[in-house]
Amino acid sequence: MEKKGKVVLAYSGGLDTSVAVLWLQEKGYEVITFTADVGQTVDLEAVKNKALNVGATKAYVMDLREEFLQDFIWPSLKANAMYQGTYPLNSAFSRPLIAKKLAMIAQKEGAVAVAHGCTGKGQDQVRIEVCTNALDANLKVLAPVRDWHFTREAEMEYAIEHGIPVMATADSPYSIDENMWGRSIECGALEDPWIEPPSDAFVLTVDASNAPDDAEYMEIAFEEGIPTALNGEQMDGVLLVKKLNEIGGKHGVGRIDMIEDRLVGFKSREVYECPAATILLGAHKALETLTLPKQLRNVKKDLENQYAELTYVGYWFSPLKDAIDAFVETTQKHVTGVVKVKLFKGNAVVAGMKSAQSIYDLGLATYSEGDAFDHNAAVGFIKIWGLPIKNWRQKHPQKEDLKGPEIEISCQ
Amino acid sequence: MEKKGKVVLAYSGGLDTSVAVLWLQEKGYEVITFTADVGQTVDLEAVKNKALNVGATKAYVMDLREEFLQDFIWPSLKANAMYQGTYPLNSAFSRPLIAKKLAMIAQKEGAVAVAHGCTGKGQDQVRIEVCTNALDANLKVLAPVRDWHFTREAEMEYAIEHGIPVMATADSPYSIDENMWGRSIECGALEDPWIEPPSDAFVLTVDASNAPDDAEYMEIAFEEGIPTALNGEQMDGVLLVKKLNEIGGKHGVGRIDMIEDRLVGFKSREVYECPAATILLGAHKALETLTLPKQLRNVKKDLENQYAELTYVGYWFSPLKDAIDAFVETTQKHVTGVVKVKLFKGNAVVAGMKSAQSIYDLGLATYSEGDAFDHNAAVGFIKIWGLPIKNWRQKHPQKEDLKGPEIEISCQ
Amino acid sequence: MEKKGKVVLAYSGGLDTSVAVLWLQEKGYEVITFTADVGQTVDLEAVKNKALNVGATKAYVMDLREEFLQDFIWPSLKANAMYQGTYPLNSAFSRPLIAKKLAMIAQKEGAVAVAHGCTGKGQDQVRIEVCTNALDANLKVLAPVRDWHFTREAEMEYAIEHGIPVMATADSPYSIDENMWGRSIECGALEDPWIEPPSDAFVLTVDASNAPDDAEYMEIAFEEGIPTALNGEQMDGVLLVKKLNEIGGKHGVGRIDMIEDRLVGFKSREVYECPAATILLGAHKALETLTLPKQLRNVKKDLENQYAELTYVGYWFSPLKDAIDAFVETTQKHVTGVVKVKLFKGNAVVAGMKSAQSIYDLGLATYSEGDAFDHNAAVGFIKIWGLPIKNWRQKHPQKEDLKGPEIEISCQ
Amino acid sequence: MEKKGKVVLAYSGGLDTSVAVLWLQEKGYEVITFTADVGQTVDLEAVKNKALNVGATKAYVMDLREEFLQDFIWPSLKANAMYQGTYPLNSAFSRPLIAKKLAMIAQKEGAVAVAHGCTGKGQDQVRIEVCTNALDANLKVLAPVRDWHFTREAEMEYAIEHGIPVMATADSPYSIDENMWGRSIECGALEDPWIEPPSDAFVLTVDASNAPDDAEYMEIAFEEGIPTALNGEQMDGVLLVKKLNEIGGKHGVGRIDMIEDRLVGFKSREVYECPAATILLGAHKALETLTLPKQLRNVKKDLENQYAELTYVGYWFSPLKDAIDAFVETTQKHVTGVVKVKLFKGNAVVAGMKSAQSIYDLGLATYSEGDAFDHNAAVGFIKIWGLPIKNWRQKHPQKEDLKGPEIEISCQ
Repeated sequence: MEKKGKVVLAYSGGLDTSVAVLWLQEKGYEVITFTADVGQTVDLEAVKNKALNVGATKAYVMDLREEFLQDFIWPSLKANAMYQGTYPLNSAFSRPLIAKKLAMIAQKEGAVAVAHGCTGKGQDQVRIEVCTNALDANLKVLAPVRDWHFTREAEMEYAIEHGIPVMATADSPYSIDENMWGRSIECGALEDPWIEPPSDAFVLTVDASNAPDDAEYMEIAFEEGIPTALNGEQMDGVLLVKKLNEIGGKHGVGRIDMIEDRLVGFKSREVYECPAATILLGAHKALETLTLPKQLRNVKKDLENQYAELTYVGYWFSPLKDAIDAFVETTQKHVTGVVKVKLFKGNAVVAGMKSAQSIYDLGLATYSEGDAFDHNAAVGFIKIWGLPIKNWRQKHPQKEDLKGPEIEISCQ
Repeated sequence: MEKKGKVVLAYSGGLDTSVAVLWLQEKGYEVITFTADVGQTVDLEAVKNKALNVGATKAYVMDLREEFLQDFIWPSLKANAMYQGTYPLNSAFSRPLIAKKLAMIAQKEGAVAVAHGCTGKGQDQVRIEVCTNALDANLKVLAPVRDWHFTREAEMEYAIEHGIPVMATADSPYSIDENMWGRSIECGALEDPWIEPPSDAFVLTVDASNAPDDAEYMEIAFEEGIPTALNGEQMDGVLLVKKLNEIGGKHGVGRIDMIEDRLVGFKSREVYECPAATILLGAHKALETLTLPKQLRNVKKDLENQYAELTYVGYWFSPLKDAIDAFVETTQKHVTGVVKVKLFKGNAVVAGMKSAQSIYDLGLATYSEGDAFDHNAAVGFIKIWGLPIKNWRQKHPQKEDLKGPEIEISCQ
Repeated sequence: MEKKGKVVLAYSGGLDTSVAVLWLQEKGYEVITFTADVGQTVDLEAVKNKALNVGATKAYVMDLREEFLQDFIWPSLKANAMYQGTYPLNSAFSRPLIAKKLAMIAQKEGAVAVAHGCTGKGQDQVRIEVCTNALDANLKVLAPVRDWHFTREAEMEYAIEHGIPVMATADSPYSIDENMWGRSIECGALEDPWIEPPSDAFVLTVDASNAPDDAEYMEIAFEEGIPTALNGEQMDGVLLVKKLNEIGGKHGVGRIDMIEDRLVGFKSREVYECPAATILLGAHKALETLTLPKQLRNVKKDLENQYAELTYVGYWFSPLKDAIDAFVETTQKHVTGVVKVKLFKGNAVVAGMKSAQSIYDLGLATYSEGDAFDHNAAVGFIKIWGLPIKNWRQKHPQKEDLKGPEIEISCQ
Repeated sequence: MEKKGKVVLAYSGGLDTSVAVLWLQEKGYEVITFTADVGQTVDLEAVKNKALNVGATKAYVMDLREEFLQDFIWPSLKANAMYQGTYPLNSAFSRPLIAKKLAMIAQKEGAVAVAHGCTGKGQDQVRIEVCTNALDANLKVLAPVRDWHFTREAEMEYAIEHGIPVMATADSPYSIDENMWGRSIECGALEDPWIEPPSDAFVLTVDASNAPDDAEYMEIAFEEGIPTALNGEQMDGVLLVKKLNEIGGKHGVGRIDMIEDRLVGFKSREVYECPAATILLGAHKALETLTLPKQLRNVKKDLENQYAELTYVGYWFSPLKDAIDAFVETTQKHVTGVVKVKLFKGNAVVAGMKSAQSIYDLGLATYSEGDAFDHNAAVGFIKIWGLPIKNWRQKHPQKEDLKGPEIEISCQ
């Protein structure tokens, strides 16, 4: 058999990627696996051993939680990045990180290719391939699961035949991806949009009806767009996100259920549970309403949508994302303050905000004594503000405008 | 005293507009009042009598609920119009309707001016003046409350002196505006953004903690963007909105608390309760995710923001709004279907959707048997999709990209 | 050989599509050709005969100029559609028309496929395939030139072998596409962006240096966005476009030279000559500055870019385009008036405009007697207009703002 | 008379601001003048003497050309800033610079106010007032010309009476503002949009018909978005702009004639001549088409419009402008290269470009040998690209699509 050189495989420890190790070997590759801890439930040691057992010649495992937080989660939080205004991109932005590490290891090992376990209809194949080739255009990107055309049954037979352990327990009916920013759930009953997502789809969050009967308030302190303290206690970011996942999950906060437009041209029903992301994005957006002016927020919102789109479609390593980051960064130096969030029965509601950077000005806003607003200025303002509309309508009167159902008029 | 002719005053029956009747008379105007029923709690007969008692020579009262629904609420629902993504514009779009009726009555009565009770720091003064002059550029628009410079005490003294009834009971600490699309609450304790809105600010909604312990599901049927049935029962729009306000309010649904950027240049803390609007906007948006393609929704979202902005700033009668309406209208003929909404403890969550117009295609979306998606097509797609990024990075390699903390790498 | 049924081939009469007739026959198809007159230089009768001679069983030819004008050119003119602000999309929007006719004939003839002569790197393959399948999802779309992998030499050998006439004269060094809205020129020397497009690339336009030494003025009358008269003479659209191509071309007007971003992921140097399109788009845009308000034009401009993008990428038959058309249509009822254009040495400059729909108001604009603008209103306006900036800067003073090079200050 | 303290007056040396010196003194102010050289035709020494002669207690004059270039012109060039896509903002961005110097001098001198000579209907009053108060919220901003209500005759009488020299020569029929980035021309015959701007309105540019009969080519080198050399010769920016004004003007390049939407609510006919700005903006934009990817340019274009709008409406010192600057700055490090521009009879046409940063890739673009593009990838790409449209139309077939005028079909 032709020797094709080394391939670095993104390895989860599950059936698909374990079978992929063998399949790639059969194609002539030496397989090196790579497994990242991005905050999912994973026993890195066990995964490493399994990789070696099924035939990998090397098995890299890395704790990437801090890097994931600093380079992906925090920038995305500053950008309030949510695809279609709803999905916090938890799975989406772990992909460029994985792609980067695949490329790093490939360079270090002199590999000719990287490989992943994605199918042909998701966007993760796009993200990993586009991001990998952004970083190293010469690397081939292999997708065994997309290309081998096994049925599920044939795959399991192949696995048993080759001594790959197949879970005895019934598989989860769902397809899952998880990291510290949230958990993505697909397939099974969720494919019918009329069906409410069943409770068994969720792991991080309780049903709202099972949440505590008493609300819980928390105070999250932000410094320049990043959360730094919880209830007055300074806290490391990785720990803070973990805590918010726990507390939010306990209150049933962070479930997301949407019809999502995939990059590859069709709609998909997607369910997520993202307690920490939901709380932090809500709090961060609210704090921006207190500290940033309207025009800036309007333009930032457009860029946020662009940012989410870029992340979703695999364009993380693009010059446009870099430019948006530069824009966002200048705005965040003012996003400092404390947000009070109330968690109750599936809700996370902002219940108060304060900030030394606040541009809410009580003197202007108040209707009580101390009103500093110049009411007379309004007269001239309105005159000029309304001028284009007044002129347009004088030029283009619409005769029906002042018509109305005569009968409704009642007067003495 | 110089006779200045007739003025048509938008009359609520409260202290300010009652005093305004007298004040306008003292300035030489004959005062005709106009009071609209747009779904607020109001005794039109009593208001009419009060107007005549304080000196109006005529008092128009009109039930405008149907017109408000057809010409303002439904178009805004189709446009998912929410100012700054949050405020359903309930107060904002009653103003062009009132302005229109003021202008109509003014023309009918041969009045030279219209008048309203707004202060100089809100946007309602802008909306009424701009909208009135859009319809009749020759009408003067008077704002007695803005221009008379009474203190609150002086105003009450003046009222008592002139026999205008002043409520014995303590005033509400809040400033309120209400109609069938919601209730706006300002002032008092709400002026401090750190304070959670007190329970006594709300009338239409209970606190979530006092809502029923059992969730309530409802099925709302939409036809071409407009709700037409509730739980399978065809229903008149005015009634449907009323019902949703009641049911939503019972479950604590529809409270909105925001820092809002006013047109007149400052930030204000605004609180709303809008049960029906919250439920319907949520359901309508969700149904669009099932029935409209991504690109269309992206562009529509931009126009929705424009639409909300135009409404907020008083540009209802503008050619841009007409053009956006035309865009929106073509999209809504596909927005037909049923949305299942679950109400529970302050939440209204979409729990299911179905539509004969659905463009969700199970054959493409499923990961099970019956998958109709061509996985092979993905190979070519990704190649071309990633080409611009790959080329950019080949031209502009960033040396640091593949650097990383060596120490984290662990492998056998 | 397996009989595959009928295919309808978009047939130009050139070498590629003539060879394609044979090639498709060899694959088992019965070939029916279709040739459209969209205003290019073409002898329909000769093309038809050639098609039949090389083996087509039927040869459709159609004069589509009027349909092209009404359904494609005029709507695009109303939308000021120019890809990347520069390219009037002349070739791009002939494709959906051709796709439509291919699908029509395929249905009429019971064909199983349509075919075109595009290569694999252009956007025309995308446009024809996407548009055809939008209209009939069951039709296969074949691209022989993309798929046959002939070299140029092999193709000519094959042609000679099969009795297909090959032009004796040297081929043009350029690849050309032409219709009444313009002429697209690619390849050859143009592939080097540093080289100025040579004179021999152009057919419709003279070099500016060879244009007449006297300027020529023309007056174009528009009614509701569409040109209807030239120099006071009512004129049929097809004729008017033809005349403008002639007059513009004589003055060297309408050459376009750009680096264009292709849909398929790379940059291409493209040259066009579009005299009529250049004159009409310039005049139409100018007339909109006189007749439409700022806000409306701002939003329309965004939609114009969307419209151009949709056309460019093959999404002509999309619901988004329909919705944009509805928006644009409402705006155009005001775009009526006369535009005076001066043609001189490669330039077409708007030299005057007048319109009964003009919203330019001399009373407001003039600095002379008759000034109707209320200068005092500006005082209040500025106060409120500047409020957000003033407050922001008071909250966020930038110490360096009022620093400056002391040395430059000179005073007595 | 009450002593009101010092005022710093932006002083041009013309009649209006000379009268303003006296008028402000009569109101009780001590007047200090400030005159900037921003590249206009001005004898600073003479202006200074005149200021002192009419009664100023101090007269500051400053050469601000370098600061204007570095802090205003270059950033705006990088942002391709043109209001309404047409006006290079020459006058608009001299205002924040003047406002800044007014505030600086006011602080240095302990003045209580600044003053300017703008009327009440332009935007310069807005720009100067908003910018000044952004930098120092406590400064009063006086606008004597707006507020004094002199007629022209009364003003001249007042001037003569007070010994202010009034030009004997007939006034220009136009109102002019000039600096190194261009010259703005208003009033007189220009107020009728049907009239072509007369030759006497222009000073920097010849009529195209009087331009040389031979084209002139120039090569402009850009480094990171800024022009640094002309025809191979490194050149100081102030000099380069001056040269381009001369050469462009000689060829009649840079005349702009537009209907402009003013901030204060009406349309105005504005004429500009900006040879250097026209050449540099054209060259810079073209170079970006060679060096920046499509998506980035699309988003940048939106921000460019925002940037121009902010400049036009007086929001130069806003956090949004700072954020856009940060975005733009990251993009410009790639905008390096040489642009060849051909000047001829009123035209400046880009005739060639080259750049080491070019992302135009001949290997991908060429249709000749060496084609590196994978034509097969197009098959899968188109399939997925067209999927949303195909599905939409299958769901929503439009029966009329495949109808057409039967009669036009001709075939054998």
